[in-house]
Formats: sequence, C-alpha cells, structure tokens
Amino acid sequence: MRIAVDAAGPEPAPDIVIKGTLEAWREARQSSNVIYPVFYGPSDTIRQILYAEGEEPDEFEVVHAPDIVQADDVPSDVISLKTASSIVRAVQHLATGAVSAFVSMGNTGAVVASARAYLGRLRWVSKPALAAPLPRNGEPGLLLDVGATSDPRNSHLLQFAAMGAAFSELVYRISNPKVGLLNIGSEPHKGDELAREAYRQLSRSPLHFIGNVEGGDLFTGKADVIVCSGMVGNTLIKFAESIPFLLRERVGNEPWFPRLLGALKDLDYARYGGATLLGVDGPVIIGHGRSGAGAVRRALFWAREMVRADMTRVLKDSVFRVRRAHWLTNPFSRMEGSEEDG
Amino acid sequence: MRIAVDAAGPEPAPDIVIKGTLEAWREARQSSNVIYPVFYGPSDTIRQILYAEGEEPDEFEVVHAPDIVQADDVPSDVISLKTASSIVRAVQHLATGAVSAFVSMGNTGAVVASARAYLGRLRWVSKPALAAPLPRNGEPGLLLDVGATSDPRNSHLLQFAAMGAAFSELVYRISNPKVGLLNIGSEPHKGDELAREAYRQLSRSPLHFIGNVEGGDLFTGKADVIVCSGMVGNTLIKFAESIPFLLRERVGNEPWFPRLLGALKDLDYARYGGATLLGVDGPVIIGHGRSGAGAVRRALFWAREMVRADMTRVLKDSVFRVRRAHWLTNPFSRMEGSEEDG
Repeated sequence: MRIAVDAAGPEPAPDIVIKGTLEAWREARQSSNVIYPVFYGPSDTIRQILYAEGEEPDEFEVVHAPDIVQADDVPSDVISLKTASSIVRAVQHLATGAVSAFVSMGNTGAVVASARAYLGRLRWVSKPALAAPLPRNGEPGLLLDVGATSDPRNSHLLQFAAMGAAFSELVYRISNPKVGLLNIGSEPHKGDELAREAYRQLSRSPLHFIGNVEGGDLFTGKADVIVCSGMVGNTLIKFAESIPFLLRERVGNEPWFPRLLGALKDLDYARYGGATLLGVDGPVIIGHGRSGAGAVRRALFWAREMVRADMTRVLKDSVFRVRRAHWLTNPFSRMEGSEEDG
Repeated sequence: MRIAVDAAGPEPAPDIVIKGTLEAWREARQSSNVIYPVFYGPSDTIRQILYAEGEEPDEFEVVHAPDIVQADDVPSDVISLKTASSIVRAVQHLATGAVSAFVSMGNTGAVVASARAYLGRLRWVSKPALAAPLPRNGEPGLLLDVGATSDPRNSHLLQFAAMGAAFSELVYRISNPKVGLLNIGSEPHKGDELAREAYRQLSRSPLHFIGNVEGGDLFTGKADVIVCSGMVGNTLIKFAESIPFLLRERVGNEPWFPRLLGALKDLDYARYGGATLLGVDGPVIIGHGRSGAGAVRRALFWAREMVRADMTRVLKDSVFRVRRAHWLTNPFSRMEGSEEDG
C-alpha cells in the first residue's frame, strides 16, 4: 500500500520524518502488508537524506514539492498560494487514489484545510474533527475534536460523536462505546449554548450517550469517546503534554524522576502515532511537530491500519445511522451538515 | 471584619466549613485584623456543630437559612425559589453592607447568579469571571474565567483581562502583568471567532498583552494572567486537579509516591483558598465542593485580604481605564458591557 509522507519540514526536519518512515518500511517488508512510502517535499533534500540513511534513492518514489509550508502560514493561503507544497500535492494524490493515506507532521490547519478542499467531506459531515488517543491505563480512549474545528455548532458535536464512536468500535474494538460530552458540570443545563444543544441531540441519538463528563474524567475511563470543541480539546491535549515538563520542574532532581517519566510517556502526544482526521474522504494522520522518528514510524503503521480497516467507509455508515435517527426524532428540523452547509 | 460563611452543605458538610472557619477565627484573633464569621445555614445544625467544636454558640452570629441548595439545582431556580437559602441570604446581606465578604464552597452557578442578581455587576462589566490561582513554582499566576461565564463574547474577554491584570497587580504585586489569551496556536488568526476578535481588542488595549498562549503554557510563567472562556478554563482546572489521581494510578505503589504528591499538592484546587469572583460589586470567594477545613480557613483569610485591599474599587478603576482606551481606539464601536447589556 502506498502512503504519502510529508517530508518537507521545517518541523519536524525531513531527516527525522524520513528516518521514521524507513523504519516502518523495513519493518513492514517482513509482513504480508508492505508499506510503500511516497515522499513529498524538496526532492534533492529527500534523495540526499535517503542516501545518507543507506538506501538507494531511486528505489523510492519522491514527489517534488518545493513550496515549504511554515508553522504560521494561514491555511487558506496555503491552498491558494502554496499549491506546490507537500501538503497540497499529497492530498491531491490521495484524492485521485494514487496513494491510500497521507501522514503529515506539519501545519495542522493547512492539512485540515487542504483535506477539506481536495478530498471533500464525508457525506452528512459538515466539519472534520481531529481525534487524539486518550492515554489511559488499559483501555484506550478517544478525545475529539483536538483542533480541526474551532467553531463547531451543536450538530457538529453530534457528528463528532458518531464518527468517534465508529472509530472506537473499529480500531479499539470497544462495542457500543460510551460517549461523553465534555462540559463544566454533570447537569444537562450546564455549559454554553453549544454544549446544551449538543446534550439534547446526543440524548436522542442511537449512540451510547452517558451525559456530560468533566475535565477530571479524561483519564478515568468514564467515557470511551469524549467530544468537545477544538478550542477545549486542543488546549487539553497541549496541557496534558506539558505535564512531564511541569514534573521536571518540581521533582526533576529526584533519583526516581526517570521512572516517573517512563510511567507517563504516553501523555506526550509527540510520542504517539498522531491524531486521525475524521470526516474527510480519505485517511489522513496528523502528527505532532515535535515528533521523533519513533512517532513517525507509528504514524505510518497507524495509517496502514486505517486503510486496511476501511475506516472512511465505516465512518460514513455510522454518520448516516445517527443522522437518520436525528431526522426521525426531529422531523421538522434541518440538521446541519448537508452538502450545501459548512 | 464580618465575613459571611456558607455553612449549609451538602458539599462540603457544614462541620468541615465551620471547623475551617473557626481555625481562621482563632488565628485572626491574635492579629490586628479580627475576622467575625457570620454563619448561614440551618441554625440548629450550625449551633450544634459550634458546640461540638468546643465553642459557645451564642458567641457567634448565625443567620437561619433552611433552604438547602443542591449541587444540581439550576441557578435561576435558586434565586427565585430558594430565597431562604444560605447563598441568597448571604449575598443579600453583602449587598446591604451587613457583611464585608462572602465565602461559599457550594453550587458555583447559584453563587454567581445570586451575586449578579443581588450585588449587581461592576459598572462596565457585562459578565463576571471566576479567577483561579495558577499553581506555578515561584511566581503566582491567574487563570480566568474558570466557570462563571460559559458563553462569553469577545469584549467580555477584554474585561476579564482588565480585571485579572488589576487583581494580579493588587494581590500578587506583579507590576504591569503579562496577559495571555488562551488559544490553539500562537498566530492571531488562530481559534474561534471569540478568540480572534478578543485578540484584536487586547492588542489595542493598554494592557501588557503578550498574544496567544497555549495549553502547555499554563505553568510556564509565559503569562501572569491567562484569559479564556469558562468552558475552557473550567475543564482545564478540573483536569489539573485530576493529575494526582492519574499519578496514583500509574505510580501509586512506588515508595516515593508520597513525595511526588507533596510536590504537586498545589495542583489541587480543593487545597486552595478558592477562586475569586471578579466583576460583581463585592468580594465573593468560591471554594471547591471537595474543600477540607484547611481550604476553608485559607478562603477566610483570602476574603479578608480582598476586603483590606479594596479589590472591588481597584477592579472598577482598571476596567474603566481599559474601556476608555477601547473607546478612543474604536470610536464608532459600542463595547458590550454597558448597563443594559448582559
């Protein structure tokens, strides 16, 4: 399976991305499901790094993409002005089926905007959501959105929940996962307008909605899937990532500090494979700008898993089921997320 | 100075609140600034507890308030239906000047709504904000709003910033404190509409605005005052509180776990004196429902400090200064927060 890899930098540097990708490629070669990476970025740089890593550059597909997307580039500018960038080219190739998935550790906003523009949204999905794994002991959890949609409306949260639940069933094998709405209290009247209306919609949905959960419930396993706006989710995962730094400041000189850090390493999103972009028509994995080679390697395997499990189709079905129930129980309402919306 | 104390329960139980209050009272008696607690709640219960604590009940003022506000009571119902509750009675007495401050560990929404209704808002403040201390090594920080206003509009965040900065100068003695806007990235175009417009307003304000900060900057000291919506702030502090529980799960059996916990005890909001409600016309301290006697004791001293420093007047001046600058730079805009708004 051919997986597009964003190797343009500047963060993380192309050599880190290529190193991690090669690790995944070598490992996958011994399995029945080979990964063929396709590198997007400045081709000379990529070929030099491949050579330095002991590989024959001609053995790999490299798509030249000279425009470099910086961390502070405005997403809409990237789509219109940096069309020769790794992100835009890879997403275009994913749309045509030339590659099966796309892995990027670059500018999240630019990846989300390009994916929306070139892949299109799944039918009945108005806004995509970035789903991050919730590190918990034992069972896996999912938090979404962590930064794809900062201004959701209430039925977007319902769509996030439908996609998150389907993802959780598919990937984590949790049957009928518990869905929680992140809020400032457990009562239905709590929170902003978005949360209150989402509560009503989730209550009437066919999902296993357990009600509101709070900031302290993130790691307790109370809910398998936690939905929130991108503002809340993004702030939370960045805060979670910073906990090891906080601990270093407090107890960094203690002899047991390394053991503590080891027990918490899953809090650092950069060590993960990355977050999965749900709601666009194709598998897109967005990793952290601080990713090391190990995280890139995991992101490649993760992308392969998404393709094998046919994630995009499963999400479509789940959103349809939830949307149909919404129509049946709210016959006179128009749910956001039709083709003309968003 | 007479300080109203919510001793009605159910969370925390009246005996915890009374115990903590008596500790503060005994300690303050030896200082030049005596605290006279006025207890609000079921008078028989309060008198029995005072007796059990070895005090003569008749020596204390007790205001009988038989209506008990539950954690899940809707705030607007409390104001209209539970007028004989500790919260409503205490706030009414604070409005008349019969007491100088109010300390409650009860239903946050009910305290906020009662304070808005009976104390009124400060002039030019449309929405109150709950300001929580940010535990950092060394310098103190402030995060607001952590749950008073879940649906802020952009100029509310400007008001929060003005109040937070004034509070930080007054209480923490930080001159010209650095104000950060909590967002999902450092660039001005990041975030939801609220954040983008607040960024523009803060940039033109006389405050020392340092731009956007992210979830990972909470404890780094990058900003002294961090403003955000109640949804984000509340979720964050509840998550921060849960870190010790997360650590217990991971490394609770290690011999060094108690030392680790000791180094992080300031993350637990319940151990703090509480959050300060900014923007209403009188000092109101809202503690955590899980507060122990020690937190109640600290909340009493905190309330005394707010009264001594004349916090309410200082906030008024600061909001006026920021509002005036807003008018000068935006002559045709109408800033929210006039008397008819909110």
